[in-house]
Amino acid sequence: MAGTDTSIKIELRPTPAVILCEPQLGENIGTAARAMANFGLWDLRLVRPRDGWPNERAVAAASRADHVIERVRVFETLEDAIADLTLVLATTARSRDLQKEVIGPDDAAIRMAAQIGSGKGVGLLFGREKWGLLNEEVALADCIVTLPVEPAFASLNIAQAVLLMAYEWRRHSDVGAKLPFADAMADVAPREELLGLFGHLETTLDGSGFFTAPDKRPTVINNLRTMLERGKFTSQEIRTLRGVISSIDRKHQRPNPNRHKPAEKTDDD
Amino acid sequence: MAGTDTSIKIELRPTPAVILCEPQLGENIGTAARAMANFGLWDLRLVRPRDGWPNERAVAAASRADHVIERVRVFETLEDAIADLTLVLATTARSRDLQKEVIGPDDAAIRMAAQIGSGKGVGLLFGREKWGLLNEEVALADCIVTLPVEPAFASLNIAQAVLLMAYEWRRHSDVGAKLPFADAMADVAPREELLGLFGHLETTLDGSGFFTAPDKRPTVINNLRTMLERGKFTSQEIRTLRGVISSIDRKHQRPNPNRHKPAEKTDDD
Repeated sequence: MAGTDTSIKIELRPTPAVILCEPQLGENIGTAARAMANFGLWDLRLVRPRDGWPNERAVAAASRADHVIERVRVFETLEDAIADLTLVLATTARSRDLQKEVIGPDDAAIRMAAQIGSGKGVGLLFGREKWGLLNEEVALADCIVTLPVEPAFASLNIAQAVLLMAYEWRRHSDVGAKLPFADAMADVAPREELLGLFGHLETTLDGSGFFTAPDKRPTVINNLRTMLERGKFTSQEIRTLRGVISSIDRKHQRPNPNRHKPAEKTDDD
Repeated sequence: MAGTDTSIKIELRPTPAVILCEPQLGENIGTAARAMANFGLWDLRLVRPRDGWPNERAVAAASRADHVIERVRVFETLEDAIADLTLVLATTARSRDLQKEVIGPDDAAIRMAAQIGSGKGVGLLFGREKWGLLNEEVALADCIVTLPVEPAFASLNIAQAVLLMAYEWRRHSDVGAKLPFADAMADVAPREELLGLFGHLETTLDGSGFFTAPDKRPTVINNLRTMLERGKFTSQEIRTLRGVISSIDRKHQRPNPNRHKPAEKTDDD
């Protein structure tokens, strides 16, 4: 989806670090960087990337998440990569035989937000494409985060796992679930204008002989008013509708331009 | 991330349909199908896919989301694709000058869940890679859904947008945010065993002359007990810790194997 507003400067707020353990493909580092950027994350750390760093394929796959790629830091050990952090969450799709709490992404985001809110460093660990995190890596984390996936189809690539965690983080951060744009909705018209529309329509229908059964008239009018009210029309929309009514109404007083187009059959043909 | 449990049969529950309008690349159709499968969606509809259907690249990119790919339906018009649906949500990253409500993914998921819960059909519209949905397509939807992205880096590919919507759908569906696996956490040991550990440690420390200032002993013991209590140890872990204490303690009664390894300096060297 398009929509990036390039006029806005990217600001680097305190956010969780993303730590990729021995990532194999540069593409995945790049797409992970892009997913981070989508939700305002920027601190990407790599532990022994297989193809070294910098990596051209990563840069290409990041599609302009340069502010993330430029800041990538490479570490020899996971211990070094997490040394400055106080909360470390290990993402995994597999159950581990470890005495460690397992939480979902929203719980994780709430805990991360609390830590970052109090100025602490937080990190999210992601494992290798092929077999994820090793148990000794998970053992270094405070707890395990896993996603509420369909167990029969649980395999996510790294960028997608990063995207979902980054999304949940942002929803729970001080930025919150703020949307990049809001309704262009104009105000609903004052009742007076809606009543004007009702009157206009009902007078016109009286003139066109719409109410064949006079005793039913009140009920039919209530139903019409109910229908129209639900539209929550703006002043402009009410003007448009009244124009529509007048136009159809006036048609009776002028030669019908459709007279010779049976395709567009009209009620007075 | 690995983790798919191939022993579980995929069941097709009522879920939102995903409608891709004029998708250009087969890869994106495939990765969208995979993202759907991750969160239990399976009804994928294509409106005029540029490269036709079936599409080999889509199949390859779907990486075994065959149950989605096999059920793909192709439509000539968006109107046909949504004909059977009662709630239609248009995803877009751009503000439109339309008198239409804009909501976030969680709101959208709550509304979708309500409709599907009452047996209605729901659909999510996604636009072309290059320029998203056309206004006349958005106009056919009940409301606009957009993601709480970083405005300065808002561009998501289709599969990622589908992934996030599918994730939010599942969180709010009757399946809920159920995680594919839970803690392997054993129960915390009964207090009696924790008190046994306290006693064992404190007796050992009395023997080793740890409490140099007897008047401080109660405070130090309270601090030690507080520290250990926080561990929420299981019975097995308490046995392990008592083994650790005994082992260090017994060291005083046997020749120290580390005597000639200054690298591993120990307190009685």
